[in-house]
Amino acid sequence: MERENGRKNNELREVKIIPDFLEHPDGSCLISFGKTKVICSANIEEKIPPFLQGSGEGWITAEYGMLPGSTHTRSQREAVRGKQSGRTVEIQRLIGRALRASVDRKLLGERTILIDCDVIQADGGTRTASITGSFVAMAIAIKKLLKESIIEKNPILENVAAVSVGKVNGEILLDLDYSEDSNAEVDLNLIATQNQKIVEIQGTAETHAFPREELNLMLDFAFNGIESLINLQNQVLKNYD
Amino acid sequence: MERENGRKNNELREVKIIPDFLEHPDGSCLISFGKTKVICSANIEEKIPPFLQGSGEGWITAEYGMLPGSTHTRSQREAVRGKQSGRTVEIQRLIGRALRASVDRKLLGERTILIDCDVIQADGGTRTASITGSFVAMAIAIKKLLKESIIEKNPILENVAAVSVGKVNGEILLDLDYSEDSNAEVDLNLIATQNQKIVEIQGTAETHAFPREELNLMLDFAFNGIESLINLQNQVLKNYD
Amino acid sequence: MERENGRKNNELREVKIIPDFLEHPDGSCLISFGKTKVICSANIEEKIPPFLQGSGEGWITAEYGMLPGSTHTRSQREAVRGKQSGRTVEIQRLIGRALRASVDRKLLGERTILIDCDVIQADGGTRTASITGSFVAMAIAIKKLLKESIIEKNPILENVAAVSVGKVNGEILLDLDYSEDSNAEVDLNLIATQNQKIVEIQGTAETHAFPREELNLMLDFAFNGIESLINLQNQVLKNYD
Amino acid sequence: MERENGRKNNELREVKIIPDFLEHPDGSCLISFGKTKVICSANIEEKIPPFLQGSGEGWITAEYGMLPGSTHTRSQREAVRGKQSGRTVEIQRLIGRALRASVDRKLLGERTILIDCDVIQADGGTRTASITGSFVAMAIAIKKLLKESIIEKNPILENVAAVSVGKVNGEILLDLDYSEDSNAEVDLNLIATQNQKIVEIQGTAETHAFPREELNLMLDFAFNGIESLINLQNQVLKNYD
Amino acid sequence: MERENGRKNNELREVKIIPDFLEHPDGSCLISFGKTKVICSANIEEKIPPFLQGSGEGWITAEYGMLPGSTHTRSQREAVRGKQSGRTVEIQRLIGRALRASVDRKLLGERTILIDCDVIQADGGTRTASITGSFVAMAIAIKKLLKESIIEKNPILENVAAVSVGKVNGEILLDLDYSEDSNAEVDLNLIATQNQKIVEIQGTAETHAFPREELNLMLDFAFNGIESLINLQNQVLKNYD
Amino acid sequence: MERENGRKNNELREVKIIPDFLEHPDGSCLISFGKTKVICSANIEEKIPPFLQGSGEGWITAEYGMLPGSTHTRSQREAVRGKQSGRTVEIQRLIGRALRASVDRKLLGERTILIDCDVIQADGGTRTASITGSFVAMAIAIKKLLKESIIEKNPILENVAAVSVGKVNGEILLDLDYSEDSNAEVDLNLIATQNQKIVEIQGTAETHAFPREELNLMLDFAFNGIESLINLQNQVLKNYD
Repeated sequence: MERENGRKNNELREVKIIPDFLEHPDGSCLISFGKTKVICSANIEEKIPPFLQGSGEGWITAEYGMLPGSTHTRSQREAVRGKQSGRTVEIQRLIGRALRASVDRKLLGERTILIDCDVIQADGGTRTASITGSFVAMAIAIKKLLKESIIEKNPILENVAAVSVGKVNGEILLDLDYSEDSNAEVDLNLIATQNQKIVEIQGTAETHAFPREELNLMLDFAFNGIESLINLQNQVLKNYD
Repeated sequence: MERENGRKNNELREVKIIPDFLEHPDGSCLISFGKTKVICSANIEEKIPPFLQGSGEGWITAEYGMLPGSTHTRSQREAVRGKQSGRTVEIQRLIGRALRASVDRKLLGERTILIDCDVIQADGGTRTASITGSFVAMAIAIKKLLKESIIEKNPILENVAAVSVGKVNGEILLDLDYSEDSNAEVDLNLIATQNQKIVEIQGTAETHAFPREELNLMLDFAFNGIESLINLQNQVLKNYD
Repeated sequence: MERENGRKNNELREVKIIPDFLEHPDGSCLISFGKTKVICSANIEEKIPPFLQGSGEGWITAEYGMLPGSTHTRSQREAVRGKQSGRTVEIQRLIGRALRASVDRKLLGERTILIDCDVIQADGGTRTASITGSFVAMAIAIKKLLKESIIEKNPILENVAAVSVGKVNGEILLDLDYSEDSNAEVDLNLIATQNQKIVEIQGTAETHAFPREELNLMLDFAFNGIESLINLQNQVLKNYD
Repeated sequence: MERENGRKNNELREVKIIPDFLEHPDGSCLISFGKTKVICSANIEEKIPPFLQGSGEGWITAEYGMLPGSTHTRSQREAVRGKQSGRTVEIQRLIGRALRASVDRKLLGERTILIDCDVIQADGGTRTASITGSFVAMAIAIKKLLKESIIEKNPILENVAAVSVGKVNGEILLDLDYSEDSNAEVDLNLIATQNQKIVEIQGTAETHAFPREELNLMLDFAFNGIESLINLQNQVLKNYD
Repeated sequence: MERENGRKNNELREVKIIPDFLEHPDGSCLISFGKTKVICSANIEEKIPPFLQGSGEGWITAEYGMLPGSTHTRSQREAVRGKQSGRTVEIQRLIGRALRASVDRKLLGERTILIDCDVIQADGGTRTASITGSFVAMAIAIKKLLKESIIEKNPILENVAAVSVGKVNGEILLDLDYSEDSNAEVDLNLIATQNQKIVEIQGTAETHAFPREELNLMLDFAFNGIESLINLQNQVLKNYD
Repeated sequence: MERENGRKNNELREVKIIPDFLEHPDGSCLISFGKTKVICSANIEEKIPPFLQGSGEGWITAEYGMLPGSTHTRSQREAVRGKQSGRTVEIQRLIGRALRASVDRKLLGERTILIDCDVIQADGGTRTASITGSFVAMAIAIKKLLKESIIEKNPILENVAAVSVGKVNGEILLDLDYSEDSNAEVDLNLIATQNQKIVEIQGTAETHAFPREELNLMLDFAFNGIESLINLQNQVLKNYD
């Protein structure tokens, strides 16, 4: 089995991050994993949800959407259906949890970072691209807070990034594109930090349950991918120091 | 009163159209009127709404959305609110009517063209950019139908484009940006064809009613703008012949 | 082509206004344009929307509905569907804008006028009847405020009324009924003031785009219709001085 | 305690029925119980709900609504709230049950009668006026079916009508208006037939439970009221034979 | 006609009440009428609805639901449909009214008792079981308030219970199960107090209207059933004194 | 740190399964993990979703709900809110995936198994109890299909069960109850089969990211828990052979 563009089993697609893609949000970027393209933006609001009132802690929450024209076959607009799908809700909860794990919310103070991930073009891995790009959008927005002395200490603990890995036709592959993902027997998403610590792991047997040894092989691939992604994030972000 | 970038009262902002911006839809482009940027896409479906069944005629319908991060202050996601705002509904009905007026629906046959306009960045004039760009996306999709001999005769009657004109501080201005639009006393949108015929005219006195002579002045400006926009559409589209 | 009841091309249908049709609202009337009948009512509330808080200005907003039994074929109740249709939303936004343009909102003070237009029987022109009748309901409610010395100066700037005009079988016709409207090539609604100033103009080519000269002919017809409607409004309202 | 207009405890308000109030429905009337006014209309559709398919039986269903301006204080439009209130749902289910009990649904055949009751002005007793008026609208529609020989035998078994009775300040009163209803200790609605048979009885202690003897007194009043209402229905309907 | 288990026409099914069925609510029980099983729970909140603010009075409100697996054929989950059915709304309004009639809301003070009735298994009579069981759950919760000296005087006026009675194949039967209820010609629910006073009576002719004498026979049966149910409530509740 | 009832770190709470808890579903049980109690039921429908039509394969889908009175503080009824929460949607998708992984859907044939999990009392671990109990309900329903010779071969591949494991105050604990879960630093759910294969793994760092070694420790605990749960499932199910 040959991957597109001669990609190796443990190789990421070409990943690009264009920071400051939008003018109005506090931070933003366009991230692409191959043909998958997501606009990530971060806006900071000086208020917090009721359950944190008076706690001194901030909050980070995310929303996710796909343009109807982003998918292979046009997908229905959720604003027209009148509600977000189960898949959308799952993904935006995941993005929020991932980013919250990378921030000291006490240092952020009583403010909320609203993340928006909007998929412009989908070719597999939209949730991992969303998380990896959202970290960049959030970091840009936080650096603005620091520059304007609204907060004094950087609340970011470590970078987080996310990558998928799967088993397709019996082989372990890193960073599945849409055609690989559609045929995967196992699909695993890893969200991890710069120090190789796990923020979230979600592995699902799509067709057959899999043994623990395969979990370990997949994690080896995934941690390598995470390392490359975090290096790229840091290259982009060093211009903001 | 000076306009941004020394623009004259009867001058459009810089307008750019990047065709084939997305891979999956049948036709697509990214259109920008200055800082206003809209992704327009067109998908063709081999079915029609019930009220046209058996009529031999096709249909064209549009949906419109704004990314939460597209506006000066983040706007709420309509999929989260659970419904489209009145403004959204009005705009997408307008886009649909405009495009239907440019097509011989008998020649299109019993198929539907679904238009999606998604505003990536908003700085005034998103509805006129949407209409002008949607015509390009639709024309690309239709040319594909012709190439594949799915239809035999081009159903497009003439190009349509749209532009805004308004009265701001007593002066008539073409193609208002957001800061001008926010201060407009009168706001008029014209949708017209290559032959200077009116498809739709919508003029609203935001603060004071206006005399018929001003309507005429505004129409003079608007017809000139339409001419330039249609020239640009044709430049882009000639590569598809 | 003969119009019903031998009506001339530039003639309105018989228009009647029964003021104080309902007991509970602050102002109300039943307006009929031929067989089209709309109950218009106005209620004044001593509060304003958040975006006007502290501005010293009032607000006017409208809602529109059709009884299921008002249409030729029974129409579905929007409360059962769970939402208002795009058409309903468009019309009620239009009514609100029209009435706001006829009032000095500073003189109204921080209160809201809620307009309700409920179509009892529909035979074309429900939106123009709604606007023309709503002005009367609003004016009655405002006169009550003046009598009770809640406000001191009349905030009404000038009367507004609305009328439709269209092109049917190549002829320009004033005030289309349902059967004419269903066959119209062009459909134009004009909302204007006593002084022949334009509040809103909305013209749509239903089938073919139309030249600017026809716009002018249609406006001539429409301004004449507006004049008659405003005369009738004033006859009804003079009993309230 | 004196009732408005010197009405006696066992006396109905002035009840009027204007048949054929609307042009488009198959049957309609405007019914008023004093200041309470309801437009009732009936439309016949040549289809039935899935659970009756193939049964040979017809169906009768009702919808109920109140104009926002009908109530003492403007009430919110249910189409804006996005759903019907519990009270609305209860009333429309009640109207449907009442009418179904007056018809032999086998004789009606596989068609549906859709009833709409729209309250124009509310002053107590809107549900009893709705039921009493709906019977008239339905009967007119059915007589049309008979005239057009769509059905052969009249499916109406007997007239139904409804009236309220209550205990206010310790006295039993027939046909409560709004001010009486607001102070009622017990509120009972009776739906019954020409032959003094009960279709539905609903009695509620608003403040204190009441003894069985009072139930009997209230029923005496209510059956008398029903008799008068059915006489009035028959006067109106005899013109349709 | 023989009833299941040789039950007599005026005999209740076996009724059981297991108090304190749940750990978290302030009061709860599992009530069964034969195979019909309902979990009733009561929670007390130290707040009241806006319309009672400052009145010194409390409020009692109820919600009702059925597990999808409770019915003979699986019923759709209302949370999935996105709204409660008309039947659900009717029943929960009924439960609330019944319980409010049994309590002196001044003595309860400005707090709300929230009742939840969740049907685990349905075999006819779920609303009467819900009311009878809810009274027990409420009484347990109130006794807790008294023990903790949050209120000083017991606000319960008298017990309430509910039972159904119907006419099936011409015979009057007490406490209908599902198979009887499906064939009932008349269906009547009585909610009454320990002193034989009526809180609510709802009788419906499902197929044919019924004479007043039958109403009286049905009430005789129903009052006897109520007496037995209230005795059982008191046996359960005496352990809480 | 002492666990409730002297439970050891690698010990499950007392787990009980009462099969056939409901009469109407094709399979059902009440499962309890300590104080957590869930009613699981399975219904078989002779139809499949559109995307499987003609595939010869069956489908398994799940719904999940919590009674308002099941939680420590009463939770809002989702049918009243008008939609299911993100958490609910996530859990029911998880249950569906888990069960689908345990069945050969070709052998099931073109029918759907609808699972309902309704939490009666919640004390942590409702999703793992739901999965473990749903497998039992589904297996009972499938055995009925086999007995009635509707299918010939048992489509169940292997048992699946689920258990939680977490890090609380630095210690790894199996099967967290509510008070442990509220303080967990890491929370991991494992769904696995009789043969120690992974169906789904979901691990989340609630406060701090965790190293890969801890993932391994947690999996050791979890696989042991799964083994005990599957033994219990088999004890219950052997009565159905």
